[in-house]
Amino acid sequence: MTGNRGWVLESYPVGDDFDAALKLRDIPMPEPGPNQLLVRSLYLSLDPANRGWMMMPTYIPQVPLGATMWGFVLGRVETSNIDGFRPGDLVSGFGAWADYCLIDAQMANRVPDLGGLPLYAAQSLFGLSGGTAYVGVLDVAKAKAGEVFLISGAAGSVGTLAGQIAKIQGCTVIGTAGSAEKCRWLVDELGFDHAIDYRKEDVAARLGELAPKGVDIYFDNVGGPLTNSIAAKMALHGRIVLCGSMAKFDNPGPELDLGSILLNRVTVTGFILIDHFHRLDAANAELARWVKEGRLKHTADIVDGLENTTAAFRKLFTPGAPHMGKLLVRVDPAAN
Amino acid sequence: MTGNRGWVLESYPVGDDFDAALKLRDIPMPEPGPNQLLVRSLYLSLDPANRGWMMMPTYIPQVPLGATMWGFVLGRVETSNIDGFRPGDLVSGFGAWADYCLIDAQMANRVPDLGGLPLYAAQSLFGLSGGTAYVGVLDVAKAKAGEVFLISGAAGSVGTLAGQIAKIQGCTVIGTAGSAEKCRWLVDELGFDHAIDYRKEDVAARLGELAPKGVDIYFDNVGGPLTNSIAAKMALHGRIVLCGSMAKFDNPGPELDLGSILLNRVTVTGFILIDHFHRLDAANAELARWVKEGRLKHTADIVDGLENTTAAFRKLFTPGAPHMGKLLVRVDPAAN
Repeated sequence: MTGNRGWVLESYPVGDDFDAALKLRDIPMPEPGPNQLLVRSLYLSLDPANRGWMMMPTYIPQVPLGATMWGFVLGRVETSNIDGFRPGDLVSGFGAWADYCLIDAQMANRVPDLGGLPLYAAQSLFGLSGGTAYVGVLDVAKAKAGEVFLISGAAGSVGTLAGQIAKIQGCTVIGTAGSAEKCRWLVDELGFDHAIDYRKEDVAARLGELAPKGVDIYFDNVGGPLTNSIAAKMALHGRIVLCGSMAKFDNPGPELDLGSILLNRVTVTGFILIDHFHRLDAANAELARWVKEGRLKHTADIVDGLENTTAAFRKLFTPGAPHMGKLLVRVDPAAN
Repeated sequence: MTGNRGWVLESYPVGDDFDAALKLRDIPMPEPGPNQLLVRSLYLSLDPANRGWMMMPTYIPQVPLGATMWGFVLGRVETSNIDGFRPGDLVSGFGAWADYCLIDAQMANRVPDLGGLPLYAAQSLFGLSGGTAYVGVLDVAKAKAGEVFLISGAAGSVGTLAGQIAKIQGCTVIGTAGSAEKCRWLVDELGFDHAIDYRKEDVAARLGELAPKGVDIYFDNVGGPLTNSIAAKMALHGRIVLCGSMAKFDNPGPELDLGSILLNRVTVTGFILIDHFHRLDAANAELARWVKEGRLKHTADIVDGLENTTAAFRKLFTPGAPHMGKLLVRVDPAAN
């Protein structure tokens, strides 16, 4: 026993069979080098992007076989070789699916003042999900009052926040999700104007009713066939923000017909938060304010136990799985 | 005999069989109503967009069966019901493929001072082709010195001008065209840095050699499969300007894989000149100056005789057809 367990990538996943590819093993306790932290994990953030990291080089290299799976971690510093971090500090950053992992200085972020919110808000509200939603809606989509704002993957970590932020801006907000339960929740609990069950309903026909003048902004978290159905319903000079492509894992190949993009003079913009890290402080401050004012809800689907990570992860890619909000694994049972 | 002939759309074209769909008929001499001109055609501008107008509603309604085919005309005013136009004035505008046609006031444009250039420069340099090239390169693509600028349909009316304008901005300019002859002409006569015969060469492989850091701007005049090959070679934060989609007529359906658009944070923008008419005066002035300074060549492929219109038109959609520059039909044999 090493006192440390981690999910080792032993083969590249075929389809969504993550259990065959990732194995929970006893692994060595890592030794922090210069400008590194040794961190004890409290929560792991499970994100659709993690799947892409295993499949190919993206904005980071492909995860190599034999590595402990990379991921975003919220944890507590055990040993610090970084000026300004001390043992016991809370930190979030790019680490690994393990009880203990290393975080490099340039990937380590101090957890902002949570203002009485539970600890997991550092991942469900602040950080990457909240930053992506905030920057995507305000800086990239430039959502304005009166516009029709459509978001796919609406019940996910970014979708729940982005839809509410667009609502705060004064948009008419429509979400797509994979079950009637999620759709009801988006409208009843999060205040979306409408929600469409893309697996049961004809999305294009519903949009014809709900947005007869077309969709001004499509915040795309999924890619794949749904994107083209929605692209054909864009308003003149509409904007599509490409933020995620989880549906592409099962639907590779060209998906967007450029005919209507040209005719309606639509702009399609690929967006990854790494270009916008300078906006995170402003995002966190405003997100916290909206929560305090009761205008924004943050939601988390918390799965207990490092050993349940791959089972939880598969929910992200199972349409209709009962998963709503930010998906987290609580590694330390005592974490709030 | 009515003294007027026109190409009547008697059925919608199947494929590129325009001869079966359009018939040259004796047609009535039109009577101008209020705010209309009766115009005698000197040149017809043949443009890929004309084909789309027959196929479906676009930014204008679909051309109805029985109509004399719509098109852009350069002509001389015979009868004017518009203040400021007099018989004998030169005019360009939205008319018809006929010896005589009507032009509405809001679609009638005075021909700018041609400064000694031949009359057809009103269509080969100024007006829609030049305006599209100018606004597309400067305002939409925002081409800057040192960038790699790639243009498809490079030997066409917009392509020839846009490539040269990007070169004037200091870009490295690469064109794609459908024959070795066109490619040589682009480099030797128009000063493109490189040209790729997309029918004979592996475009992606050639781009790997010519633009190892990726393509900063792709000015897309064709759509279809070529677009996706090029999209995968875009540089980080590259821009794709969708200006034409002539290849889509034979390749309907989704063509763009959004995976690399997202990963490289590329922006794709649909562009039609009708949103930018306020820029035409500035465009014409600068285009004229560049021609005068010897920095810009305008080229026309002039076909004589209204009766040869459909045969000429088909060249636009025949890869490798010996056609370079703006395609015009000279209706009046005396026009210079």
